[in-house]
Amino acid sequence: MWAVIFTSRRTEGDDGYGEMATQMVELAQTMPGFIRFDSVRDASGKGITVSYWRDPENIRAWREQTDHQVAQKYGREKWYADYEVAVCNVVRAYGKKNLEDGERE
Amino acid sequence: MWAVIFTSRRTEGDDGYGEMATQMVELAQTMPGFIRFDSVRDASGKGITVSYWRDPENIRAWREQTDHQVAQKYGREKWYADYEVAVCNVVRAYGKKNLEDGERE
Repeated sequence: MWAVIFTSRRTEGDDGYGEMATQMVELAQTMPGFIRFDSVRDASGKGITVSYWRDPENIRAWREQTDHQVAQKYGREKWYADYEVAVCNVVRAYGKKNLEDGERE
Repeated sequence: MWAVIFTSRRTEGDDGYGEMATQMVELAQTMPGFIRFDSVRDASGKGITVSYWRDPENIRAWREQTDHQVAQKYGREKWYADYEVAVCNVVRAYGKKNLEDGERE
């Protein structure tokens, strides 16, 4: 399994962000190799989103997907004051899971 | 670089959590191979913390550190309704960084 860690700080105001974010979540779920994602943003605008994928090829295809490219452009230009992307190979995962189906999203 | 993704959902109430979390943040920073961490928790109690380390050996040493072991025990028993740990090898990282020094913490 692979993970993409997206750490970001939003600019002020929505400016189309909310609608696009919802679209991107729905779109990512249709991509080959998509496993799931977790996303948290606090009141200060700082957020971490981690998406999990089968293979690095799936991550590349998602990064290059046309609508996602548009979203990334807006992200760089107006939605994020700062962001960082880390592409990772998950070598071990464990935990205590009581989450309901769908609650992770 | 390696990353530990800690995804969690807090139980209700503080119950010593805040004080221990502060201690663990300070302690982690003294551990060999520690690079930095990012942490976000929203009002619902859902959180993602990512710590970055030089080597997997550094991650193992941190997991086995005595005070951290105590914190992990309390975490399992009372502070977290659910949690998940993913240990990852970061193969690529990039972004747009305007963060002030220290602001990441």
